[in-house]
Amino acid sequence: MISTSLLLKRVAPFAIAGGIWFAPVPAGLTPEAWHLFAVFVAAISSVLIGAYPLLTASMIAVATVVLTGIITPAKAFSGFANASVLLVVIAFLVAQAVVKSGLGRRISLFMVSRFGGSSLGLAYSLVLTDAAIAPAFPSNTARGGVLFPVALSVARGAGSVPEDEEKRKLGGYLMYCTMASLAVSSALWMTATSANPIGVQIARESGLTIGFGSWLIAASVPALAAIALLPVLVAWLFPPGVTSTPEAPAAARRDLAEMGAWSRADRITAVTFVVMVAGWVAADSLGLNVTSIAFLGLGVLLMTGVLTLDDIAAQGDTLATFLWLAVLFALSGQLNELGFMSYAGERLASHMGGLSWPVTYVLLIVIYVFIHYLFVSQSSQVLALLGVFLDVGARGGVPVPLMAFGLLFASSYFSVITPQGGSQNIIFAASGYLKQNELYRLGLVVTIAFLVIFLVVGTPWVLLVTR
Amino acid sequence: MISTSLLLKRVAPFAIAGGIWFAPVPAGLTPEAWHLFAVFVAAISSVLIGAYPLLTASMIAVATVVLTGIITPAKAFSGFANASVLLVVIAFLVAQAVVKSGLGRRISLFMVSRFGGSSLGLAYSLVLTDAAIAPAFPSNTARGGVLFPVALSVARGAGSVPEDEEKRKLGGYLMYCTMASLAVSSALWMTATSANPIGVQIARESGLTIGFGSWLIAASVPALAAIALLPVLVAWLFPPGVTSTPEAPAAARRDLAEMGAWSRADRITAVTFVVMVAGWVAADSLGLNVTSIAFLGLGVLLMTGVLTLDDIAAQGDTLATFLWLAVLFALSGQLNELGFMSYAGERLASHMGGLSWPVTYVLLIVIYVFIHYLFVSQSSQVLALLGVFLDVGARGGVPVPLMAFGLLFASSYFSVITPQGGSQNIIFAASGYLKQNELYRLGLVVTIAFLVIFLVVGTPWVLLVTR
Repeated sequence: MISTSLLLKRVAPFAIAGGIWFAPVPAGLTPEAWHLFAVFVAAISSVLIGAYPLLTASMIAVATVVLTGIITPAKAFSGFANASVLLVVIAFLVAQAVVKSGLGRRISLFMVSRFGGSSLGLAYSLVLTDAAIAPAFPSNTARGGVLFPVALSVARGAGSVPEDEEKRKLGGYLMYCTMASLAVSSALWMTATSANPIGVQIARESGLTIGFGSWLIAASVPALAAIALLPVLVAWLFPPGVTSTPEAPAAARRDLAEMGAWSRADRITAVTFVVMVAGWVAADSLGLNVTSIAFLGLGVLLMTGVLTLDDIAAQGDTLATFLWLAVLFALSGQLNELGFMSYAGERLASHMGGLSWPVTYVLLIVIYVFIHYLFVSQSSQVLALLGVFLDVGARGGVPVPLMAFGLLFASSYFSVITPQGGSQNIIFAASGYLKQNELYRLGLVVTIAFLVIFLVVGTPWVLLVTR
Repeated sequence: MISTSLLLKRVAPFAIAGGIWFAPVPAGLTPEAWHLFAVFVAAISSVLIGAYPLLTASMIAVATVVLTGIITPAKAFSGFANASVLLVVIAFLVAQAVVKSGLGRRISLFMVSRFGGSSLGLAYSLVLTDAAIAPAFPSNTARGGVLFPVALSVARGAGSVPEDEEKRKLGGYLMYCTMASLAVSSALWMTATSANPIGVQIARESGLTIGFGSWLIAASVPALAAIALLPVLVAWLFPPGVTSTPEAPAAARRDLAEMGAWSRADRITAVTFVVMVAGWVAADSLGLNVTSIAFLGLGVLLMTGVLTLDDIAAQGDTLATFLWLAVLFALSGQLNELGFMSYAGERLASHMGGLSWPVTYVLLIVIYVFIHYLFVSQSSQVLALLGVFLDVGARGGVPVPLMAFGLLFASSYFSVITPQGGSQNIIFAASGYLKQNELYRLGLVVTIAFLVIFLVVGTPWVLLVTR
């Protein structure tokens, strides 16, 4: 039997949907837009209150909007064929090769063996590795899965254990640096997290085309500044206790030696990823389709047997992601197409009327970042709010590329604001090296630091390169 | 190291692709159509010769056609959003509930407990169960997975074992009846196998709309005739030895009693499926989208916890199916759109010129069925040839609905022609109750019987109901 509170939770989304659906349609909106909004809010809020997972909510939502005739089947299903959604799906599959072949671990160990002689050096080696491998890892969760065992073995190797209050600090320091690094490395590369291509697609609906290369140029200065500052900032907020870790490079070298020579799978994976990333970088100028490059990479990894059909058969959760992402993506696009986003934007804009565009820009970014306290996933906030915020900024006179990049980068770096703000955080938060209150305190300060860097350094840079 | 023959196999598809690609483009075709044909033939033949699985071949194929600019990304990816492809994917997920809850096994046992007193009764109970549950099982492989353990336990219960030449016969009889039943029950319902919605979509490109209800009406008479004849025919071709099996109903009742009362999951699954099938039947007249009904069913099963996210996470092979199906489906559609199908149709038609339409019709169906000796999957033949054959028939004056239904039904019943003609056969063919030569001999005769029934009984009926 389920408890009353759970029952209430499970009924709540339907109550929300019904409440909005049957409320009078606001002037300026079509009934279709209003009813779609009712379903969309119910689906997102069912996830926020923990009533149903995203998959369940999105299946019910898409069935509702099609069967009630709000949206045509073709439009409701269009997300499945969207190149950005497909890029996320294929890249998830492709990333398995880096984990499976051990290539990711090899790169991390190499970095530690070179730069790991101090706690700061260890942190930098982890953070820079993350930044370097990120373009080929469109899932920051998968990247976390590669970096976590390295961070753990480095911490253990230096004698840091969660059980000892003093000794846990080095481990906690490295865990937090890596976790925050995942947030900011995701802002550096368009293909570093699944939310990015989604955001790019939403920005395209505002007439802005962003490619792998133009993203990298715009992100480079503020993201690299944030990455450079991160280990120092966290060391100041959460002193690691130990500063010199002379054993770590030797331990990494030992582990590397134990891994032996590069296997055939390592080499094929490395070449495939180098070619894929090169293709992604050159895609804009050569007119290549980014998603097809990912399809080719997957095909090559399958053809060479680096990935097998059994590996794919274990990826049912990628199918679940594909299903909910495609559905919510299409519904969010339809909210826009049916005029809801611009309606909501007008309403929000009317409250912000009379402000100069720089004030509007800063205010919108700050609100957008702190609203993430409410969201458990980056993608769901991007799907729900990015379009509206972009629209409000554009109405307020903010240059569209600046507003778009500001929101896109924020969609990555805000993920450390809470331990549940991004799924990649979970494994680090659960490592035992960090306490809940530390995670929230560090989350707030580090997020504010990222926000300031991206506003102060990023704004003039983005204005410069998008003129 | 891989052997020379395997290496040759793996190079062959690329040689085929290159050979066709660089051959002079035939008059009447655009270079795009010809190059797409080269890639498509290479992909299909790589599967036929066992060089690469469908997933590998289709990933390379879609990347090739997009990166070389033959097809736009939007068209190449359109299969992912196709309602028929999505129906297959969602229905695969939904079918898990019938297996997981034990509802499928419960229904089968009930039938045996009622009608299982003789070998013929046992066969009819299996065959009729199959026909009854088929609309909710879009994968005949999954249906085979439910029926096989029942057939096995019934055979064992009656003392039939593979090791004893005389005693194996009853088991072999039941295995073959069930396997052939899966082929013909797939022809009865539009949602009984994944190839059907694909074929329907291809027929739509020829301007013919087929719904769940119109399919059922057209299929009912010939498919039910074939189902009714099947146990008698196989008993004549492959005598079961034992004719009276008085213990089987009691054993089934025991197994049923052991299963206990209907669980919550059983009841929810049963209600969901009844509602889904009712929705599918009424979809045409009520203007409901069939795929969305499946989405709703999946949503309800997830919401009620009958299916969990863990169940979906185990469905990575459904993702693999989704990927290759969507890609090959889109490429096949593009072959049609670029004029290749009608070109090939004209060529084939020119060889059949001067024939009356009934002769053309019979000849095309017969060729289509026997070509299945070459194909290891129903879907791949449907994707490769159904469109061309339909086009040739239409050019030859065959009424389009007759030609379409004739080919669609054949795409199901031809699967028993070889043990590898449909993946659902494998489990029965590997049961040990049947020998390879028996499978081929029975396959030929039973397929001819199906062909004759569908031509002789089906043709006038389909003409009557599609006027």
